Amino acid sequence: MDGLIERFAKMESAGVPTLGRRPHIVIVGAGFGGLTAAMRLKPAEADVTVIDRRNHHLFQPLLYQVATAALSPADIAAPIRGILAGQGNAHVVLGEVTGVDVAGRAVLLGERRIPYDQLVIATGARESYFGHDEWGAVTSGLKTIEDATVMRRRVLMAFERAEDSDDPEERRRLLTFAIIGGGPTGVELAGALAELAKAALARDFRRIDPTTARIVLIEAGPRLLPSFPPRLSEVAERDLARLGVELRLGAKVMRCDDCGAELEDGRIESRTLIWAAGVAASPAARWLGIEPGRGGRVPAGPDLTVPGHPEIFVIGDTAEVAGPEGTLPGVAPVAKQEGAYVARVVTARLTGKPPPPAFRYASIGNLATIGRRAAVVDFGWLRLTGRLAWLVWGIAHIYFLIGFRNRMTVAIDWLWSYLTYQRGARLITGDNARMSPASIQSNRASKP
Amino acid sequence: MDGLIERFAKMESAGVPTLGRRPHIVIVGAGFGGLTAAMRLKPAEADVTVIDRRNHHLFQPLLYQVATAALSPADIAAPIRGILAGQGNAHVVLGEVTGVDVAGRAVLLGERRIPYDQLVIATGARESYFGHDEWGAVTSGLKTIEDATVMRRRVLMAFERAEDSDDPEERRRLLTFAIIGGGPTGVELAGALAELAKAALARDFRRIDPTTARIVLIEAGPRLLPSFPPRLSEVAERDLARLGVELRLGAKVMRCDDCGAELEDGRIESRTLIWAAGVAASPAARWLGIEPGRGGRVPAGPDLTVPGHPEIFVIGDTAEVAGPEGTLPGVAPVAKQEGAYVARVVTARLTGKPPPPAFRYASIGNLATIGRRAAVVDFGWLRLTGRLAWLVWGIAHIYFLIGFRNRMTVAIDWLWSYLTYQRGARLITGDNARMSPASIQSNRASKP
Repeated sequence: MDGLIERFAKMESAGVPTLGRRPHIVIVGAGFGGLTAAMRLKPAEADVTVIDRRNHHLFQPLLYQVATAALSPADIAAPIRGILAGQGNAHVVLGEVTGVDVAGRAVLLGERRIPYDQLVIATGARESYFGHDEWGAVTSGLKTIEDATVMRRRVLMAFERAEDSDDPEERRRLLTFAIIGGGPTGVELAGALAELAKAALARDFRRIDPTTARIVLIEAGPRLLPSFPPRLSEVAERDLARLGVELRLGAKVMRCDDCGAELEDGRIESRTLIWAAGVAASPAARWLGIEPGRGGRVPAGPDLTVPGHPEIFVIGDTAEVAGPEGTLPGVAPVAKQEGAYVARVVTARLTGKPPPPAFRYASIGNLATIGRRAAVVDFGWLRLTGRLAWLVWGIAHIYFLIGFRNRMTVAIDWLWSYLTYQRGARLITGDNARMSPASIQSNRASKP
Repeated sequence: MDGLIERFAKMESAGVPTLGRRPHIVIVGAGFGGLTAAMRLKPAEADVTVIDRRNHHLFQPLLYQVATAALSPADIAAPIRGILAGQGNAHVVLGEVTGVDVAGRAVLLGERRIPYDQLVIATGARESYFGHDEWGAVTSGLKTIEDATVMRRRVLMAFERAEDSDDPEERRRLLTFAIIGGGPTGVELAGALAELAKAALARDFRRIDPTTARIVLIEAGPRLLPSFPPRLSEVAERDLARLGVELRLGAKVMRCDDCGAELEDGRIESRTLIWAAGVAASPAARWLGIEPGRGGRVPAGPDLTVPGHPEIFVIGDTAEVAGPEGTLPGVAPVAKQEGAYVARVVTARLTGKPPPPAFRYASIGNLATIGRRAAVVDFGWLRLTGRLAWLVWGIAHIYFLIGFRNRMTVAIDWLWSYLTYQRGARLITGDNARMSPASIQSNRASKP
């Protein structure tokens, strides 16, 4: 009898109701991690509620293609409700989480409480400016669909304003694009911007020559793509240089303002600064009232639960999970594997089976693309560069895009871009889409 | 000699420089009319400057498909610079015209002056609320890409808020969509909204049943599609009723507010009012300092010039042009034929040839679609309804969409929608894309 009480207490502590109530699993965030967890819980005898502040799941690795006018927002986003429509035990709540009542086991959305038995926090990360939050106002980030359309507008507007300007210095500033951060996002943006300027826009202007645009890629470390093997970094550096991208390695940014960036060894005059450097985890640690780890992440135990709280899991960019070479990076495959693992743990608990062994990330490789003909791919056992790597990259990304329709239109948009050097989605939209002195100013000053 | 002076004076008056200077044709507005005129002037020995406040040409007849989440903005828009890239004599200026110095022959963009020899005004129309401008704040219009994404957001958000609401009356209001105006835009929106609710979203919610949504189409006149033959109006009414759209014919709107519309014979409670009723021409008449005609249009002479100003043309929705059955309607084919005609007049002047005969519109028919399987088509000599009309409509619209890429992706998006009843572009984006009490309020109150 004592054994039973103990077992019941342990079950309750791990978020498994013992009174015949149907368990409720709440997942906050419908990114790669959260969505994978939700989908893997389809057969579970439990209610699964997915909360997100956006109505769509976003295929973030291709966001830079929206920002550089190659793809449309809808090509890389799919409505969460649509993805889970056929999953009877799944519920979707569109709302912004403001906190977690850990003791009372409820997620808070302002006044509203959503009780849970087990909670999965998969809320991702946002830009971090290394203590210089004011840089956020003068740089463009790339985390949401809106970020991407804002960046697209700023980039296209810079060419328009250069065409319009009679001041040669201002023209140069407008035709200089400085990207801060030499990780995959920075590398891919630099390549795409170089091609936008040097091919897609080449014939469209009469007073300026877009092919003279300067694309500067700034990296504080000694090489690009620090998470890749050094040889692939070299290839990426060579390929980018071939596209005309100017590399500034080992260059630390000291200051950003609305007409340039100050490096340790000089200043780059630019009207378009792009931030691809640091990220910090979402405020999950604050919600849970625990001390955040590296980059604001929540330290996770070997089963991805929060120490002391077997009923709370953290995954993806929110979680600090130890890997063979330090903390696992904030990339989609990590988040997806963590989401799948959590679903296994939850299912084991609900069915009374023994839990799976501790989480281990099985690396499926690193990919980054450099413009339309080159990429670097690192599978560990196989390293590819050049055209073949580009093909592998393209197939992998189309394959992983959620939804058949997206795959079709992305494939067509790419084929079209590839064959013609044109860009399909060159729209300047939004509140500041019109050309007026006021709009130009607010275009710089406000971040939506 | 006197004859020569007279001829020169006449040439100068018509905007043909007599001093060997290269003539400058300025076109304001890159809609169907302005763009056609610019493209037809490709062989002309003249500089052609196209001014638009947006960087893209918009295929407005399909805007309702963006608003109802079937197409992406970039599917129906193409950058003006890209369209004219290969036309050596064409220049594109992104800017907002604030007035015209008629005596000094210059277009004004704030402080900036762009001198012209001949001017084509093709600035289109915007919503008109019959003297109730305050209705603009509580209804959604459909003229620009932003209008369409705002309408898409409001419609999708209404379902989200209904799912979220515990108040049955508020739910009913949220699930009621009232469209004011039974012309082609209103009819097409009603059909598309009915299908969005009854097919695409049908399985996506857990607490509400989207198929119970009420779509109400309000028309002040006695029948839908007043510009079509009465038999086609009947077919459209029958087809819409079959889709579950509620028709209110002969119903005049007395008042719009943020939770409904008051008709003469009762009130419709709705959180989503859509304005598809009246339009008024852009402020061209004010720029020219002349008395506007019907709907704010500028009365045009038989050669589409402004009386007393042979150097100024007005075309498209900006112009009041007499046709066999009253003023020509504000539709794309009229604007395109007028643009082509103006190019002929200008070319004749520049080459010293006799001017073409007075403009005559050659009707190519009227089309309107009702959901995904029906349409009405009136070619005058041929009237089609049902599935065949839908096919004709689809082919015509894809054919006329500018740009190969757009044709491809629109075709695929349609095929996809048709086969699956799904919507490809169901994104809630923009400043109010997140679900919070504040955003909901501002979602209603502010019009971007």
